[in-house]
Amino acid sequence: MPITGDQTLLKQINRMAIVRRVRQQAGQSRADLAKETGLTKSTVSLLAQELIDEGWLVEHEIQITGALGRRPTPLSIDPHRLAMVGAELGVDRIHVVATSLTGEIVWQADEDFLSVDAEGVLQRLASLLIDGIVSVRAAGRQVLGAGVGLPGAVDESAGILKVAPNLGWRDIDVATPLRSALTNAGLGDLPLYLQNEADVAALGEFEFGEAPVPEPLVYLSLGIGVGAGVVVNDRLFLGSAGFAGEVGHSILQVAGPRCSCGREGCAEAYIGLRAIAQQSAGDGDVQASAGTLVARASAGDPLTISAVQRAGHYLGVLMQNLWTAFDPGRFVLGGPTCELGAPLLDAARETLGRYARDAGLPPPEVRVSRYGARAVAAGAAGMVLHKLVRPL
Amino acid sequence: MPITGDQTLLKQINRMAIVRRVRQQAGQSRADLAKETGLTKSTVSLLAQELIDEGWLVEHEIQITGALGRRPTPLSIDPHRLAMVGAELGVDRIHVVATSLTGEIVWQADEDFLSVDAEGVLQRLASLLIDGIVSVRAAGRQVLGAGVGLPGAVDESAGILKVAPNLGWRDIDVATPLRSALTNAGLGDLPLYLQNEADVAALGEFEFGEAPVPEPLVYLSLGIGVGAGVVVNDRLFLGSAGFAGEVGHSILQVAGPRCSCGREGCAEAYIGLRAIAQQSAGDGDVQASAGTLVARASAGDPLTISAVQRAGHYLGVLMQNLWTAFDPGRFVLGGPTCELGAPLLDAARETLGRYARDAGLPPPEVRVSRYGARAVAAGAAGMVLHKLVRPL
Ligand SMILES: [Zn+2]
Ligand SMILES: [Zn+2]
Repeated sequence: MPITGDQTLLKQINRMAIVRRVRQQAGQSRADLAKETGLTKSTVSLLAQELIDEGWLVEHEIQITGALGRRPTPLSIDPHRLAMVGAELGVDRIHVVATSLTGEIVWQADEDFLSVDAEGVLQRLASLLIDGIVSVRAAGRQVLGAGVGLPGAVDESAGILKVAPNLGWRDIDVATPLRSALTNAGLGDLPLYLQNEADVAALGEFEFGEAPVPEPLVYLSLGIGVGAGVVVNDRLFLGSAGFAGEVGHSILQVAGPRCSCGREGCAEAYIGLRAIAQQSAGDGDVQASAGTLVARASAGDPLTISAVQRAGHYLGVLMQNLWTAFDPGRFVLGGPTCELGAPLLDAARETLGRYARDAGLPPPEVRVSRYGARAVAAGAAGMVLHKLVRPL
Repeated sequence: MPITGDQTLLKQINRMAIVRRVRQQAGQSRADLAKETGLTKSTVSLLAQELIDEGWLVEHEIQITGALGRRPTPLSIDPHRLAMVGAELGVDRIHVVATSLTGEIVWQADEDFLSVDAEGVLQRLASLLIDGIVSVRAAGRQVLGAGVGLPGAVDESAGILKVAPNLGWRDIDVATPLRSALTNAGLGDLPLYLQNEADVAALGEFEFGEAPVPEPLVYLSLGIGVGAGVVVNDRLFLGSAGFAGEVGHSILQVAGPRCSCGREGCAEAYIGLRAIAQQSAGDGDVQASAGTLVARASAGDPLTISAVQRAGHYLGVLMQNLWTAFDPGRFVLGGPTCELGAPLLDAARETLGRYARDAGLPPPEVRVSRYGARAVAAGAAGMVLHKLVRPL
């Protein structure tokens, strides 16, 4: 490796170490940072000035305190000048957001699609990503990169969606059409990252959560499909072939109902949106959306409420099982099924709590994503940040 | 940190990088190692000579080949001069082994205990560990350290067994009595490591398996208790409080049979030795050991065979669930229940294979530990090596 390359990398490592430290604890001075990073005060000053100039950090006003004189100037992450763009390619909808460095959504767009023709869908996705980038730039922010969460197993380095059962796709090259659309729009320089939807949502919760975020962090994606993203030791846990976290197809009941994957008794066959719709349908609409189910439950429809509670109970069983496997410091629940709210979540917490009580243990922490239906899109923006602040 | 400390650490990092490289591929020359580690040839030569002198590496005889002249001298791990001592503190038995650097068992001892009085049991454990160390030294090997696998959740740095349900122990300080026994025997300098039994067995399979060992590696410990040890990114996956891998208490059937932990339908209530004994008992002995069950199954007792097959089926379900969670590159099965052999393992493989077929996927690799009932003790020896070859 040429020495210049090494020096540039070394500098970037040190710059991002400062960003990560400031993010862990806002309001630190350059002297604090020098102590904690092991860099000299003059190096920290130089790099901090660069990061201020580029929009990563912001310097608070100088605080004059009588007795102590001029205090060191505290530094924080700047939420105003940089942005990342993130998208979710869902089973029937595209969400795109732009977020600040601290995770506030500053721009968003959604679009439904009916045809699952890959070429057409990816064209729309590219177009919405470009809209986001252009809009955010027009509003005066620099865009650091784009991320996309995909509904299936992803080969990250090849940019391929290997299998997306709920779209019926197999081995679809997602990176190439997105990259060429970005290039055609004069945005070819922007970094682009792809990953499974639950994984990117986990990264979003990890990067945008209030520090320190406990580990392992297990994000549960609840929609037509059910999956988990796991962050441990500061990284995604992906498994040997990228299938780790496919927990929608763990068995909650031997010889239970048939699942979309071909097996019987999978978590998805109890907790998946289609399973809930079917249970709540009676003679009615077995394809009901989360929104329809919410409306029915709010109107007090007993069949819907009991179907949602049943799903919540099995969600508690799934969390119990993931608790024994991963011992998470935090569960985060996200995805459209979360719109069902209390009837689902109370039942899940009650079941998990009962298992914990039976074993004499305190239950693990369970939160609902603050991003709601945009957890994957915001997570895809968080993935961009995740990659940039870890140059190695 | 003083510069001498840094230099010593740096040297140890480089030495162990060489050991790990040679282990990955035996027969490498110093020139190969220089290329792969990025160290100069003279540094590699210096460190390799030290490692040869100390018993880590062995130099093969110089190969004279006609046309090519004298070939570079290949290096391998020396299986003859160093050893690690490992112990399993089981629920009713202590196993102690000493292994070579390459995992051959060179000394072993077993002892049953009836009273579960912690003080007395730990005294016997210490005494057997010391026997092992002294015997191995007498046979001309240097001992690098000792490791112990414990039947419950372990606070590794404090040396405390936090909870061992099948012993009825809680918050037992294991490190202090072992360390003082070693000190009294003049062995106070030896490194001592403690960890959960499934975790140490996983480390043993990882350190002593034929390179390269695929990751994640999931070791399933099958006995009275059921647990998993997971190695990923070259390290144990321990979770937020050291409870990761407590998969014996994942739910395979909602409202299933009552488990020792107080919950219902846990894997242990189907796969645990006591559950198998109970199923196979009819009106007989519900406390049958693995050995008794093996004898009954070999004699063709239909009740025992069907109980073992049923447990194997549920073991397949458990592996299916761990497959979706961890996407392991390899499963290794160990512990006394494995003595039940084909009726158990065939049923497990058949169930896992059926789930894989239903989903159109190849099943993950499943092996049985070559150490049999000594998988934990050998793993505890492997843990010593695991720590030593990773100075950071
Ligand atoms: Zn399934
Ligand atoms: Zn249990």
